Amino acid sequence: MKLINMMAVATLLVTATTHAANNLVPVAEKTQETATSLRDKAFKDDSAYEILRSLTTEVGSRHPGTPGEKAGIQWGVNKLKALGFDKIYTEDVKMNGWVRGIETAEVLVPSYQKMIITALGRSKSTPEGGLEADIAHFETYADLEKAKDGSLQGKIAFISNRMERFKDGAGYGPANIARSKGHELAAQKGASAILIRSIGTDDHRNPHTGATSVAMGYTQVPAVALSNPDADQLVRLMGYGHTPKMRLNVQTKDLGDIVTKNVIGEITGSEFPDEVVVIGGHLDSWDLGTGAVDDGAGVAIAMATAAFIKNNTDVNPRRTIRVILWGAEELGLIGARAYAKAREADGTIDKHMIGSESDFGAGPVYGLRSSKNVSAKAIHVVDTMAGIMGELGVSRRSGDTSGGPDMMPLSALGVPALGLMQDGTDYFDLHHTPDDTFDKVNPDHMRQNLAAWTVFTYIAAQWPGSFK
Amino acid sequence: MKLINMMAVATLLVTATTHAANNLVPVAEKTQETATSLRDKAFKDDSAYEILRSLTTEVGSRHPGTPGEKAGIQWGVNKLKALGFDKIYTEDVKMNGWVRGIETAEVLVPSYQKMIITALGRSKSTPEGGLEADIAHFETYADLEKAKDGSLQGKIAFISNRMERFKDGAGYGPANIARSKGHELAAQKGASAILIRSIGTDDHRNPHTGATSVAMGYTQVPAVALSNPDADQLVRLMGYGHTPKMRLNVQTKDLGDIVTKNVIGEITGSEFPDEVVVIGGHLDSWDLGTGAVDDGAGVAIAMATAAFIKNNTDVNPRRTIRVILWGAEELGLIGARAYAKAREADGTIDKHMIGSESDFGAGPVYGLRSSKNVSAKAIHVVDTMAGIMGELGVSRRSGDTSGGPDMMPLSALGVPALGLMQDGTDYFDLHHTPDDTFDKVNPDHMRQNLAAWTVFTYIAAQWPGSFK
Repeated sequence: MKLINMMAVATLLVTATTHAANNLVPVAEKTQETATSLRDKAFKDDSAYEILRSLTTEVGSRHPGTPGEKAGIQWGVNKLKALGFDKIYTEDVKMNGWVRGIETAEVLVPSYQKMIITALGRSKSTPEGGLEADIAHFETYADLEKAKDGSLQGKIAFISNRMERFKDGAGYGPANIARSKGHELAAQKGASAILIRSIGTDDHRNPHTGATSVAMGYTQVPAVALSNPDADQLVRLMGYGHTPKMRLNVQTKDLGDIVTKNVIGEITGSEFPDEVVVIGGHLDSWDLGTGAVDDGAGVAIAMATAAFIKNNTDVNPRRTIRVILWGAEELGLIGARAYAKAREADGTIDKHMIGSESDFGAGPVYGLRSSKNVSAKAIHVVDTMAGIMGELGVSRRSGDTSGGPDMMPLSALGVPALGLMQDGTDYFDLHHTPDDTFDKVNPDHMRQNLAAWTVFTYIAAQWPGSFK
Repeated sequence: MKLINMMAVATLLVTATTHAANNLVPVAEKTQETATSLRDKAFKDDSAYEILRSLTTEVGSRHPGTPGEKAGIQWGVNKLKALGFDKIYTEDVKMNGWVRGIETAEVLVPSYQKMIITALGRSKSTPEGGLEADIAHFETYADLEKAKDGSLQGKIAFISNRMERFKDGAGYGPANIARSKGHELAAQKGASAILIRSIGTDDHRNPHTGATSVAMGYTQVPAVALSNPDADQLVRLMGYGHTPKMRLNVQTKDLGDIVTKNVIGEITGSEFPDEVVVIGGHLDSWDLGTGAVDDGAGVAIAMATAAFIKNNTDVNPRRTIRVILWGAEELGLIGARAYAKAREADGTIDKHMIGSESDFGAGPVYGLRSSKNVSAKAIHVVDTMAGIMGELGVSRRSGDTSGGPDMMPLSALGVPALGLMQDGTDYFDLHHTPDDTFDKVNPDHMRQNLAAWTVFTYIAAQWPGSFK
């Protein structure tokens, strides 16, 4: 129904107006038919799920500077070859490496209890053997802000507020400041370390790591996250009137200069090979789990989408589909920034017609949103995509999007982006934890993602008009 | 409805027959009324939940030979005092102690991956720094039995079958042989270690520890359990045709002779103080979690039940209610065996009228079962208890019961027992894992348990007849 309406509107505008009409390029009926047929076939296809199984099982975690990262890059190249991509290459990205070593915590007073923690990204080490200090409790980052500068000498600042659960992950941002900036604030207040409740929605003793505001070197004080049950435990202990004393031992290492890679595979455009549609996920993961929902799923969906389109069309779509397996996303979109900078420098940024990244887990897509860079004359194409995705439970949504974290540098340079919004209700149960493993992924959801991404990618590469 | 029927039957038998009737002592109407009224009040009472909060928070884990165990024993004595028990004492129990130290595992081939494991009870250490060996995979213990003796030299035997989920925990027994006896079988086959999938129903990276068949010293080869997702990972790796090579480093310590305690509190019987009704839970826990569902919940329910009855009756019930916080259950009912042996020796075993232990988590009670030691002439009392518990969702069940693990030695000596059957659908998600923490417990379920246990305990202590 929606499709027919959209076509009618497009046809009407093309035929009945003059100046504006010339700018509106309809989505050909044949393109829509092919997209619909690809959708239905993709919805029964397990290739994304199987690619994810391979990555998470045969490689595992892929943190920059570790053997897993190297194995992941090699896996990416090999898998792109096996999937029949037309062109495969990697691009070096310079960065500063950091890895965790020992990370233990114990409550010493009022009773001896082992706590489960993990170091946050680029955490500074404690003195060898650890530090011992009383807990100074703040419910929120804002509460810690109110403490007098220098007033927390010899204490561990503890921020205990819990991230809220929402379908769209809206609880992440508000909670995340404790993770990213807590170390700076704790240092300012004189604390010897910052201890936060994990930024996550689960109730398991699997702590959530994640980046801090630091890009190189170390945080100002050791920065660690307690699992949710451990954070509950500390809060309960204080509820009995105790002031817990803890021993915290964190040993981490700055690896200095290292090189990571963006791994790229292309399905060459049959008519406009220089014009690219960028899709992808990030190949790096945190080290604790195997990076299944963050972001093996995105990697697998993007690789499977492009290969599926190539293998199910007689002729490649008009534009090149460029699958980018982004490097070092977790540490600050490092691969994405390098890629965008290089395209700005070599002038090919204008050939980036549209893009999107899948990086919000393995839940089903429920919404399609377009960025402000998508021009008014191309909005009907997005509406058409959403119409064809409707059968998959996807609806057109308002609001802006960057098209995913690794699309942000390209979006900032004017590249149009779409957001294929995923149900992230459970995403933050697993995000950045040891529990981010393949068994958590639902194969039905992976098929649905593949179908939705196929619709978007095929039409974006086949429709000859400009999204800008 | 059921109550009235039971009373009618009892009355009928007492009045209308001669020999048999003399043996049937009815449950007085007043006793039933009081039990009903206590039930309704207990169902609104959070004392069991609050006792559990205190134990799991202020003490934490309570493994024999650790500071947590000592703190737990002290907590037990103090809490019994605070709850107003009439008599409080401890009894020493000699045992052999064992504690875990380092426990790490990594897949080295085909790619480097950290695995999450835990040592099983009394596991032998690997050589310092660990051992490296290929995995020899067996789906079940029975499959490992079929291997030739001595054929697994230089390999780690891995048993991968998964425990099934049932409300009554029926999947535990069949899966458990790999944990208890796997080390013996692996040694017989020549393997250098036994690696099992955790005996548990969850999908989190929290491994399940537990006892082996060894009472003193060490297992024959190092014995460890992988978390369920890690076991899945190994199985998937082998599905790709790889033979994983692992490094396993387990360092454990035999503590030699140690002393633990049964902690006992009594509500003295007002008429038959020498006759005891035994209720309890076990105070020890595994070291990984804080022993909330195993078995802080049982400890809290038993303590709260006795205190609730004392505080809500004008006169103590006729018999003594003896709450036993059993020591070292996890390592083979060590406290329970010592207790039963001592009562057999001093002749007071006959004064144990009936008993039960709560040791199946914190789920609601749904069934009441009596042991074969309960004589035919006392069955009507059990039926009466079940009738009064009916409002709580409890129904009378057929089948035998030991009355809980720590009641087994007493049951073997002829002490009648009841089983208050709990819904254990989720119990083995948490059992023996780091995830066994207070946040997993539902306060509504704790209130329901308190109400059911109050009905049983009050009637058992107040009804003047014999259960034997």
